[in-house]
Parts: sequence; structure tokens; C-alpha cells
Amino acid sequence: MAETSIGTIEKKFFEYDKAIVLESEAVLDRFVLAYETYGTLSKERDNAILICHALSGDSHAAGWYEGDRTPGWWEDMIGPGKAFDTDKYFIICSNVIGGCKGSSGPGSIDPKVNEPYRLNFPVVTIGDMVHAQALLIDHLGIECILCAAGGSTGGMQALQWCVSFPDRIRSCIPIATTYRHSALQIAFDEVGRQSIMADPKWEGGNYPEGGGPDAGLAVARMIGHITYMSDKSMERKFGRQLKKKEYGYVFTQEFEVEGYLRYRGDSFIQRFDANSYLYITKAMDYFDLQRDCSLAQAFSHIKDMNFLIIAFSSDWLYPPYQSKEIVKALKMNGLDVTYCEISSDYGHDAFLIEFEEETILIRHFLEKVMRKNGIGSD
Amino acid sequence: MAETSIGTIEKKFFEYDKAIVLESEAVLDRFVLAYETYGTLSKERDNAILICHALSGDSHAAGWYEGDRTPGWWEDMIGPGKAFDTDKYFIICSNVIGGCKGSSGPGSIDPKVNEPYRLNFPVVTIGDMVHAQALLIDHLGIECILCAAGGSTGGMQALQWCVSFPDRIRSCIPIATTYRHSALQIAFDEVGRQSIMADPKWEGGNYPEGGGPDAGLAVARMIGHITYMSDKSMERKFGRQLKKKEYGYVFTQEFEVEGYLRYRGDSFIQRFDANSYLYITKAMDYFDLQRDCSLAQAFSHIKDMNFLIIAFSSDWLYPPYQSKEIVKALKMNGLDVTYCEISSDYGHDAFLIEFEEETILIRHFLEKVMRKNGIGSD
Repeated sequence: MAETSIGTIEKKFFEYDKAIVLESEAVLDRFVLAYETYGTLSKERDNAILICHALSGDSHAAGWYEGDRTPGWWEDMIGPGKAFDTDKYFIICSNVIGGCKGSSGPGSIDPKVNEPYRLNFPVVTIGDMVHAQALLIDHLGIECILCAAGGSTGGMQALQWCVSFPDRIRSCIPIATTYRHSALQIAFDEVGRQSIMADPKWEGGNYPEGGGPDAGLAVARMIGHITYMSDKSMERKFGRQLKKKEYGYVFTQEFEVEGYLRYRGDSFIQRFDANSYLYITKAMDYFDLQRDCSLAQAFSHIKDMNFLIIAFSSDWLYPPYQSKEIVKALKMNGLDVTYCEISSDYGHDAFLIEFEEETILIRHFLEKVMRKNGIGSD
Repeated sequence: MAETSIGTIEKKFFEYDKAIVLESEAVLDRFVLAYETYGTLSKERDNAILICHALSGDSHAAGWYEGDRTPGWWEDMIGPGKAFDTDKYFIICSNVIGGCKGSSGPGSIDPKVNEPYRLNFPVVTIGDMVHAQALLIDHLGIECILCAAGGSTGGMQALQWCVSFPDRIRSCIPIATTYRHSALQIAFDEVGRQSIMADPKWEGGNYPEGGGPDAGLAVARMIGHITYMSDKSMERKFGRQLKKKEYGYVFTQEFEVEGYLRYRGDSFIQRFDANSYLYITKAMDYFDLQRDCSLAQAFSHIKDMNFLIIAFSSDWLYPPYQSKEIVKALKMNGLDVTYCEISSDYGHDAFLIEFEEETILIRHFLEKVMRKNGIGSD
């Protein structure tokens, strides 16, 4: 464990040149997925773990891009000796379809017209994201993944994997997530979208590259950030601290928490595309595993799969009771489920912060799954 | 109790033609307060109750304006035989200073230049709002009010009355409120303000009458509305209900909850001024009774006053623990406090909905205060 980071890595691209039919029945003629891999695929090709990212994440889950000052978004969890141990596992993380970090999305060039798709990009679902990931897994020559894992929207994808491809996945780690978006979750997504679409610079989605609805996107991100924290974590981090000593009686940011939100909003617009924000939040809102049947029935095709479900006590955006519903529906199918509610004040963000407890839980869980399937025992 | 409404009423105006010094040390040369009264002032002038309104409220707490189709915002609570019984009490409700419903605020004409103040209106605090109310009470010839009551921002004003004018108030009913705005509360207010100020039509506050930042104000209101409800009340009211039968795979409102939020946003811009929204939320954010000392010390000048403090179990914007802090600090001063946490799924909005339980609590409390002070016993 001398090395704790996988070090420098590079983004790769998977180009799929055939058409796929989306859940909406729209056809996407071709697509690209940006992805990264860490660790080595075993010769039995049985140690692959798919990491699924959340709303604003991307394929860069771990390691460092040449010259970058910050590592991937789950660096604490992925690497030699870490929860997702790159000495043992072959880790794959791809940017979701609809995204803006190298995968096909509204900002990609539509080859038919040699212009960005913009809102002509078809609306995608969590199911479509997972479908594209499965084609990437095919491309990598992997029949069955050892595990799909992710927090928040990443957790939805992990669960969708089990429902869409029950024969191609051995275990699943959905973290701080839900089995269907609730009215509250839809509501927060919708005000974010409204904020973007109300910005005149959105121009019905047809903004020029580098000149989008920055103000609207920043407000959407600020709303998101509040929902990712908790009352307590905000109180501890900011309280009523002022940037200056006295009240200024002005409408510029005076409280530390205001400055922080503004900073997060401003930095987000540097790295994210407004239309992608619309597409991904919409996919989240459509997510509903019990749309056509009960949740237990939705899981009924899953056989002999192991689940580790993690929720956080102060997560009010994806509260533990939603994870418990998943646990119940899986247990109704006689499946092996470990549920853990981690006591944390960090709110929804905890899945990116509470890595010590997550590490212990995930390490043991993956070892159990390996043993059970007789993998890596030689 | 044949009549349950006070019937048709009219808005009145109190014009104060002298200068007042605000907490910011800015001077407001004159001001107007719009107000309404219901019931009759006793000849001892000892049965006056001040109702304080919340962020988007106004002086129209009860009764009907000639020709209007909806009554005042607390019609269920104010009237003959109701909690605030107009057969017994003289009820006063005034629009806050900084508001846009007849009281002086950023939309009022600055007599010096014969133009709206806009952002030249001085920033006001909860203390300033209460100061102006006290001058209205003087004008009405009332030495001491029987009670100040209100929910949310109205509760802050009620508490501020006790601190600012401990000799002029006999009892206080703060509902679903806090003693200081928390980081989370400031954060939600700030994204609302950012949404308004990011709208190009805000024009630095200098928008023409009837042509303001409607899109930004609507988003601010949508954010607010989410925080006024609870996960459960949203689930019960909307769940994942669609406006049409199937997913449309479009970015227009498809879920009922989206349509509702949009409707609330759109109707709000018809009745509220964007700059006033900035001023009132800023006053809320400055509110901090323990800014210069402990909360118990802040209450130390209060003698022999009765408190009824009400919180709601599912109110996550002004959670019960904040009310309990108020209870504790008042008890530290040996004051008579009744605390009640009403079990409700309605979230913060509960103070406008759970009127049956509120009515019982408030009726008994006010009768006790009357008896204790030997009022109305003849």
C-alpha cells in the first residue's frame, strides 16, 4: 500500500457505430462513451467493477490527468488497497450518455447536420445510460461484471443494471439513492431546469458554445448544493459567519454561506453544460423501478445476486427510508442484502465524504462476493 | 357564532411623517404602513392583538375586500368565535416596511425625486419592521398590546416585539419560527435572491413598473414553495402523477408537481414585487436575537410575559429544535412558556393549514393571558 493513487491516467473513448433504440422509442444512430479503467482485467475477465457517477460527475473517478491538480471524484475510494482495490479489481467508469464530459449528449456534434444536437438529442433515461454501459462492457470483452456501484444517480444506474441485465452482474452497491424519484426530488430538479430555461441566454437550448445560460445554471447548481448538505453540516461549516465583521446592509454576498454557494455556482458553469444538466435531471426524474409493477416484482428476475445498500442518516434528499424500501423488496425475493445506515451529518454529500466507513463495508462485501463466486482464489 | 367571517373590510394607511433611524443607521424620512383592523378596541384599550405576516403575506389577514373571491391569508384563524376572536379582541395586521402591499418599500415613490426608491430604499431589519409597527400602535392610541402573534417571519417579528418593547406587550405566540436565521435558511433565501438578480430584467433593481424580473422571481418562489412543504405532503399531493398518461420525453412540465410549482411561480409574479422579495428575505437573514449576547440574555429584559410557542413536526425549514431553543432561553429567565409541537405532515406550511389544533391552543392561551391580566372580566 505504498502507492495510494493509481497515478496518471487517460480518458478513453468507446465509439459505437450502430443505432440503438432508446426507451422513448427514439433512435440514436451512434454514440460515444468516454470512459476510464483502473487496475487490470483478470485473464478470466471476472473482476470488473463498474462505477456509476452522479449528476455532475464524469468518467474521471480516480487518478490524475497529466498536469491536473485535483484527482478524480472518488479518489478516496478507488486505488491500490482502497475500497475498490485496483490491485484486485478492474474498475471501469464511463460518462453517462446525455453527459458533457466526452460521451454523446446534447453538446455533441450530430453527424447528420455537422452541428451540435442541442435539444435534438433524444431524451435519455437511466435505462438508456445503462444500456450504453452494457455495450461498453461488451466492447471490453466482459460477459459478467462483478459489481456495479455508485452514489445518488450512480446508485440508480447500479440498481437499473440488476433489473436490465440480471445475468451480467454478480453484485450491486447502491449508495444514497432511491428506487424512484419522489415528488420532492422531481421538484428540486424542476426548479433547477426552470432556472436554466428562464435564462434568456439559454435560447431554447440553442446557445452558442461558450455562451450559455451561465446565470441560470449557476442558480441551479446552488439549489443542488443546498440539497446535498444538511442543516447541521451547513451550521458547522458556515453558521452565521460574515465575510466582513459587520452587517453591510447590501445585497452582495455577506454571509460565508452565500459566498460559498456563489463560488460553487460560478465554478460549475466552467465545467458543465446547461443542456446536459436538463437531460440528466430529466433521466433522474423518469427513474421509477416500480412504474409497471411492484418493486418486489421489478426485482423478481434477479437470482443469486448480492447487495450492499448504504444510506446516510442526515441525507434528506435521498433519505434512508427510500433505501429501506429497496432492501425490503430485495428481501421479498430472498436475495442476500446487507443494509447499512451510516450516521453522518454531511447529508447527501456524505457518499463523497464518509469514505472510511464506506471503505470497510465495501471491502468486506466485495471479498464476500469474490469468495462466493470462487473468483481470484488462485 | 352564526357569522364566521368578519366580512368585508378595507385597507387603511398610517402615514408617519417624521424621520426614523433604522438599525443600519440609515434614515428613512417618512413611511407609510398599510394595515387592517378587525373587531373593536375596548375602552380600556387593552385587547389589541398584533398579527405579523410572513415573507409573502400582507396586511390582509382576514375578511374580504369588496368584490374579491378569496379572503385574507389567515381567515381560518381570525373572526367571530375563531382563535383570534374578533368578538373579544381588536386585531391589527400591518404590511411590513420593505413590503409591496401598501407599506413603504423599494417600490414606493421617494418624495425627494418623485421616482420609486428601488434599491435606494434603505435595507430594513425585523427590528425596523417592529419599530414601524410600534409607531402604528402609538397612532392607534394603544399603550400595551395583549399579544403579538405570527408564523415564520411573522414569528420573528412577534419575538422581536418582546425584545424591543418588553413593556408594551403582554404575551407572544411565535409559530414555526426561529430566533436566528440558520445557514440553511440563509442559503435558500440567497438562491432566491440570486435567481432574481440573475434575471437580466432585474436591471440592478431598476426595472420599470410592470416589467420586472418575472422569470427570476418565479423560480425564487418555486424554491420557496418546495421548502414550505414536506417530502410526505408532496408525496401525498402529487407523488409521481403525470399530467398526461405517458412520459412525453420533453422538457415541458410533465409531472403534476412540476405543473404545480410553475403555477405557484407564475401566480406569485402577479402579486409580488421582486425588489421587496430581496428586502424581506434580507431582513430575515439578518435576524439573530443572539447576535450580541446569549439568547437567554437577549430575553432578560422581559418580565411577566406569557409565551405560546408552536412548531410542526415535519417543518424542516424552521425545525422544532429551533423553537425548543427559544423555550429553553425563556425558561432560563423564569418566564411562563407553553410549547407545543403539532404532529403534521404539511411541513412549514402547516402554520397556515393546521388551524384546528392551533385554534384550541391559541384560544386557551389568550383566555389565560386575559385572566392573568384581569382584562375583559367585566
